[in-house]
Amino acid sequence: MHRNILIEQIRNKKSFLCVGLDTDENKLPAHLKGTPDAMVHFNKAIIDATKDYCVCYKINTAFYEALGAKGWEIMEETVNYIPPTHLKIADAKRGDIGNTSSYYAKAFFETLAFDAITVAPYMGEDSIRPFLEYENKWTIVLGLTSNKGAADFELLNLAAPYETERLYERVLHTVSRWGNSNNLMFVTGATQASELAAIRKIVPDHFLLVPGVGFQGGSLQEVAKYGLNKDIGLLVNVSRGIIFAGKGEDFAHEAGKIAEQYQVEMSGFVG
Amino acid sequence: MHRNILIEQIRNKKSFLCVGLDTDENKLPAHLKGTPDAMVHFNKAIIDATKDYCVCYKINTAFYEALGAKGWEIMEETVNYIPPTHLKIADAKRGDIGNTSSYYAKAFFETLAFDAITVAPYMGEDSIRPFLEYENKWTIVLGLTSNKGAADFELLNLAAPYETERLYERVLHTVSRWGNSNNLMFVTGATQASELAAIRKIVPDHFLLVPGVGFQGGSLQEVAKYGLNKDIGLLVNVSRGIIFAGKGEDFAHEAGKIAEQYQVEMSGFVG
Repeated sequence: MHRNILIEQIRNKKSFLCVGLDTDENKLPAHLKGTPDAMVHFNKAIIDATKDYCVCYKINTAFYEALGAKGWEIMEETVNYIPPTHLKIADAKRGDIGNTSSYYAKAFFETLAFDAITVAPYMGEDSIRPFLEYENKWTIVLGLTSNKGAADFELLNLAAPYETERLYERVLHTVSRWGNSNNLMFVTGATQASELAAIRKIVPDHFLLVPGVGFQGGSLQEVAKYGLNKDIGLLVNVSRGIIFAGKGEDFAHEAGKIAEQYQVEMSGFVG
Repeated sequence: MHRNILIEQIRNKKSFLCVGLDTDENKLPAHLKGTPDAMVHFNKAIIDATKDYCVCYKINTAFYEALGAKGWEIMEETVNYIPPTHLKIADAKRGDIGNTSSYYAKAFFETLAFDAITVAPYMGEDSIRPFLEYENKWTIVLGLTSNKGAADFELLNLAAPYETERLYERVLHTVSRWGNSNNLMFVTGATQASELAAIRKIVPDHFLLVPGVGFQGGSLQEVAKYGLNKDIGLLVNVSRGIIFAGKGEDFAHEAGKIAEQYQVEMSGFVG
């Protein structure tokens, strides 16, 4: 998906919401559990109920891989069901030596019809380049994540010649040179929203994928305050807070209601 | 697989060879291409021909995921074919927030019958803990990788309080506290074998999974010189150099011959 189309979708819908399909089989509504194709049925109902309020879906591959080959079929059926108007992100956090990364890129950009994939930066340039070679596809590199473990390495202070930076800031600096704001985004967690001000100085133009709003405790106001740029430049992801909002037969309706609440709140930030 | 069994296998076979099943569909021998179950057939033939010379198989998930759900079936059939005497590594380089990582652990340790998985450390402790909670399973964390991109982040110098360390050394220090030498290994590339001396000071007891010998230019002598410990403590992985040694109908025989050469060379280091 071209950047201009994404921005247009955001402006038309007055929403920069991404719905995370972290479809945990064990958390499905009771009436669906054990039925054939329960996860596909659930995902389709969630998509139908939320698509007017969001511009993006993010599929967390772990929940599908836990089911083996069957899970990959469910992932395929789900991604194919998402309307072409919506950005389709594989939250896969892959990354390996170049030859291997090119096969991961093939898996998600060709075999499956994703528009974007999340990638871990630890192994450096040749682990990320193969994803960037695809036209109209997005590589979303981990910057500062929203979990507690971010403090272990991402926030370590570096020595000269990068003595003013922490590791994740160096990742943003270095990786942003490998692509541009048309093919590269960064994951920057909402639980540390004040960091977004520093992040915007390093990558003023890039889209940021922001997890951690909702369940993980980040505030949408804070994220918008520090993260918005002239093209909006934010995709705020909410997973469990939306898809598991309801536990009964009206689960999709409940999910739609929460997605709408986010959209209404976001509309105030989309000029 | 328990550490004692792994060490016993290494001593009995006088080999610490891991064969990497980086089974690139495009590189299969001509007579197999396009036949049903070509990859499974290939993998089984390679396993039959090499199992007497190695103690471990490493499946690179990218090459299987590139085929979608079918690839996961091939991965399952392959891992189930590996004899129980051999350590089965999923080279998957996963890692995500805790709740998600626990589903990756389920995918590879329960749904598939792997003994070990490679994990990226960028996101810190809660991204790695869920893998360590499995008994008799191994978490193999990226330390210093063998690719050019290792210089981008892994080799960055840190500031105080870690001013004597580079990022990958801090990863070894920190991660080694989360587990022990019975459930934790590290990936340390052979292309920078002299680094293994420094690595052994940080993790003297842990097994190291060493890629990069062969195709990527690392030398087995160098790796043994700096990497061996009292329990051997090394698994040296060779992928393409073994599995694609031959291109004809005798590909498995050719692979076995190369694997045997490695075993013979390794036998000199296993007392």
